[in-house]
Amino acid sequence: MHAYRSHSCADLNASNVGENVRLSGWVHRVRDHGGILFIDLRDHYGITQVLADPDSPVFKDVEKVRSEWCIRIDGNVMARAPELVNPKLPTGEVEVFIRDIEVLGASDELPLMVFGDQEYPEETRLKYRFLDLRREKLQRNMILRSDVVSSMRKRMWDMKFKEFQTPIITASSPEGARDFLVPSRLHPGKFYALPQAPQQFKQLLMVSGFDKYFQIAPCFRDEDPRADRSPTDFYQLDLEMSFVEQQDVFDTIQPVIQGVFEEFGGGRKVDSEWEQISYKDAALWYGTDKPDLRNPIKMQVVSEHFKGSGFAIFAKILEQDGTEIRAIPAPKGGSRKFCDRMNAFAQKEGLPGMGYIFWRDQGEGMEAAGPLAKNIGPERTEAIRKQLGLGVGDAAFFLGGKPSSFEGVAGRARVEIGNELGLTDQDRFAFAWIVDFPMYEADEESGKIDFSHNPFSMPQGGMDALQGDPLDVLGYQYDLACNGYELISGAIRNHKPEIMFKAFELAGYGEEEVRKRFGGMVNAFKYGAPPHGGCAAGIDRIVMLLADEANIREVILFPMNQRAEDLMMSAPSEPMADQLMELGLRVIPQD
Amino acid sequence: MHAYRSHSCADLNASNVGENVRLSGWVHRVRDHGGILFIDLRDHYGITQVLADPDSPVFKDVEKVRSEWCIRIDGNVMARAPELVNPKLPTGEVEVFIRDIEVLGASDELPLMVFGDQEYPEETRLKYRFLDLRREKLQRNMILRSDVVSSMRKRMWDMKFKEFQTPIITASSPEGARDFLVPSRLHPGKFYALPQAPQQFKQLLMVSGFDKYFQIAPCFRDEDPRADRSPTDFYQLDLEMSFVEQQDVFDTIQPVIQGVFEEFGGGRKVDSEWEQISYKDAALWYGTDKPDLRNPIKMQVVSEHFKGSGFAIFAKILEQDGTEIRAIPAPKGGSRKFCDRMNAFAQKEGLPGMGYIFWRDQGEGMEAAGPLAKNIGPERTEAIRKQLGLGVGDAAFFLGGKPSSFEGVAGRARVEIGNELGLTDQDRFAFAWIVDFPMYEADEESGKIDFSHNPFSMPQGGMDALQGDPLDVLGYQYDLACNGYELISGAIRNHKPEIMFKAFELAGYGEEEVRKRFGGMVNAFKYGAPPHGGCAAGIDRIVMLLADEANIREVILFPMNQRAEDLMMSAPSEPMADQLMELGLRVIPQD
Repeated sequence: MHAYRSHSCADLNASNVGENVRLSGWVHRVRDHGGILFIDLRDHYGITQVLADPDSPVFKDVEKVRSEWCIRIDGNVMARAPELVNPKLPTGEVEVFIRDIEVLGASDELPLMVFGDQEYPEETRLKYRFLDLRREKLQRNMILRSDVVSSMRKRMWDMKFKEFQTPIITASSPEGARDFLVPSRLHPGKFYALPQAPQQFKQLLMVSGFDKYFQIAPCFRDEDPRADRSPTDFYQLDLEMSFVEQQDVFDTIQPVIQGVFEEFGGGRKVDSEWEQISYKDAALWYGTDKPDLRNPIKMQVVSEHFKGSGFAIFAKILEQDGTEIRAIPAPKGGSRKFCDRMNAFAQKEGLPGMGYIFWRDQGEGMEAAGPLAKNIGPERTEAIRKQLGLGVGDAAFFLGGKPSSFEGVAGRARVEIGNELGLTDQDRFAFAWIVDFPMYEADEESGKIDFSHNPFSMPQGGMDALQGDPLDVLGYQYDLACNGYELISGAIRNHKPEIMFKAFELAGYGEEEVRKRFGGMVNAFKYGAPPHGGCAAGIDRIVMLLADEANIREVILFPMNQRAEDLMMSAPSEPMADQLMELGLRVIPQD
Repeated sequence: MHAYRSHSCADLNASNVGENVRLSGWVHRVRDHGGILFIDLRDHYGITQVLADPDSPVFKDVEKVRSEWCIRIDGNVMARAPELVNPKLPTGEVEVFIRDIEVLGASDELPLMVFGDQEYPEETRLKYRFLDLRREKLQRNMILRSDVVSSMRKRMWDMKFKEFQTPIITASSPEGARDFLVPSRLHPGKFYALPQAPQQFKQLLMVSGFDKYFQIAPCFRDEDPRADRSPTDFYQLDLEMSFVEQQDVFDTIQPVIQGVFEEFGGGRKVDSEWEQISYKDAALWYGTDKPDLRNPIKMQVVSEHFKGSGFAIFAKILEQDGTEIRAIPAPKGGSRKFCDRMNAFAQKEGLPGMGYIFWRDQGEGMEAAGPLAKNIGPERTEAIRKQLGLGVGDAAFFLGGKPSSFEGVAGRARVEIGNELGLTDQDRFAFAWIVDFPMYEADEESGKIDFSHNPFSMPQGGMDALQGDPLDVLGYQYDLACNGYELISGAIRNHKPEIMFKAFELAGYGEEEVRKRFGGMVNAFKYGAPPHGGCAAGIDRIVMLLADEANIREVILFPMNQRAEDLMMSAPSEPMADQLMELGLRVIPQD
């Protein structure tokens, strides 16, 4: 017989009754039922009930074991009495009578219980992560993550993509965050950088003629920690293709993502129609470029109805250039209590408030209520109602000013309204491509033009487009939004050196600087670069959505805490003096 | 029609004749045959011949293209005349008459030709790696690498292993090399380390109850560069299993490695019998713990025959403790010329020489020739011949002293003899497990005891074994040798804290120090650690063997040069002053 197990703790059932078996695992729970000891023995695969009574030759040893000891037992498989069968357990028809036991690993007193649902402070969980990971939820999340990544790989292979590993100790590949630096021992005073993404390398692969690249790629960004992002490394499904346009990339990645959500979504609805929404429309309709489309509310411009109206605040606002009044329709939100609550929400978000109208049935027909309705009068109110398609029992909220001043709050109010009114279907994954991102934005104060997103994207219209107003230039750049998160970001790349230099020039970067910062890639484009494009999907975030977790640390095996420390491994730590010496570095004493 | 291609450059054949097609790719070669321009158009998938004559509406544009320009053409598929069919090319039955052309990416003059076999200095190849990678051999090697890794993954999944990503920015996980350090911005003066291997994390995963882990894991070691190793990062197929013994690990990994070699070995013979050879026997028989078993030569101890013999040098050597005389049999090596050459080889390796005997047919029967035979006389000579199983036309070489003083040279002489005599089958992959490694070794001068290999291995015999002479303790530690390389290294781990502390104590490490260096793992072992073990296979080396390459840079996409520099991306480089400031570091000026 094998030294440790003839079966896993999930294997045994009625067909094994009478067999001598050997099991190994952890003591999940011990119960003493009048002198009979029942142990739930747990391994990665399941739980089997094993027991001993004073007739067992090793009863005294069994008495000693405690929670989370790792043990090996030999015993006979016995059928449980019908009334004791546990239908929830695959092994619930049987139990094993212990005839021999070996303690493989005893345990000190536990700082964290594996059995049960007790909550522990995050610091305890991270310090004893090896125990935390034994708990059912984390076991499930980590297996989910592993399976999601495997499924992604299979789907990419099926489409003839090849996975390539790009360098990790390399040159800076900026993506807007800080680099992690790695001092060089062979070249003291010089540093490598860990890549923020394999962006330059994947583009170089396209220049090298590798047609379809992907990688489950570790990315490194020295960012200040946040609940939904890892402070050090995270993973992307990174892909790039040659000889493609934007729609080709969409057609390639949609089946992968949709397939993964269908496979692991636990029966939640997965939308298969992925709308393409321009960045501009997304801002207007949803107040964000990562809209939650499970929420059916779409905002609208209603400026016309307030121009010169009796509602002086909005009427005045509209006299200024670049202002708008927008409405957030709130079907079934037609009560003063609800409207006041939303008004308070807007105030909490820093706005003076949100005007509203709601429609109620006053016995003699519909009545529009709220101060706004009074101020603008019944005709305008009715016109608004018609435009928004609302009726009795519904409400609408209004925000005015320069869109940039209220768009964010409007977006959050839309989410709040959708949740409060139960309009947002929780059991659904709703996707949309956000397209036509502007290439440039102007700094509000200085007016300085800079790239608004990825500087490597191809401007729509190519070189010609770069001759006019930079703020009018759109890029072949796209994001995938799902349930309010950005899951994917990508672009058709600018593979023509002359267009790239011009694009950077508009943002104030000279040729010299571009060559210095992106020399490897820019140099390569001079030697027959193909048109290419791709995207990267955030794996941690996808697993978070599938596992229904709000904290990224629930889907990472050994995460850092919010101060970017590994409490279990004690990282970061003080280096040894001779390590610093070899690297030619000195630590500046901190005050 | 698609913007760039209706077909790849490998798709078209006689069945497409008459179709209008669109192809994109690189100009591999241009030939002018009396006013007709032939272009070999290449993409990742293949080559298609396209052509234009003055009848083509775009002839003038076609005339302008040069090697490695990236172009898109539209044209008609035409059958080639039977005598012009190229049977070596999948598209060799057809050619495409160009009706439209678009230059997608022009090219400057090439520093490195893609077409043809011209050799270039490594610095040129690395600086223009994106062009080097377009060449057929590197395209093939990188696809091979990608396919090998995919195949490994599929094989691991089929055995119910789950892949998990362990942290990359973490604490030091020493494996005998230097760590790469990463300064922390949030904790100035403190450093993370990149893992030399995921050793501690995979063991923690076992403690966490994940039964079967694997990872295609990036490993980071700050080592001085060598032809067969990357100076920065490299990849391992890393695996770990709980509740296993040594043989379980062998039974698990053998089908994976053997399968990969059968799948990608290009028909070379792949041995399926993997002998287990003790470290001691390997040293004796092959002079190394990574023997090339394609070479049938096995060394033997022949001390008895020289004790008190007329060959004074050996007789004297044998009067000292711990000495031996060993023979290297050389079947078919029985000529003075060959024997003298091998003797010279030993001298080049720093030995005074290698004594030899060879057997020849002198008409009246076999004669043993060489000075050694004369010195020890016919009886001893004949006894040696019989022990080694040699005959006419064969030779044997002899080395004496303390084995540690000549074992290395003996091993290299064995390889040399095998190669010179054509005994080593080049078209074969021969594997053996080297087992029973000693846990400890004594420093030759100081006599100080230290770990000879992995300190985390379980000593054979457990705690009891640690009570006697440390130099007698063997570990459950193993390597896989293939064709003279170490492909795999692994061990059954020491999962019992008390045995681990004792094992470290023997090597002179106190509990305090062990806790400081391996705190995360040692702490975890106190909470019910399961018995576990595993191994790691070097992916770069496996691909090198399969691709028949001697230099690791031929199987890595973007390798560093021998000075650990990336010439294409200009890494490492000087950091910016504010980056150092943020990290609280100062560079010590170098003299």
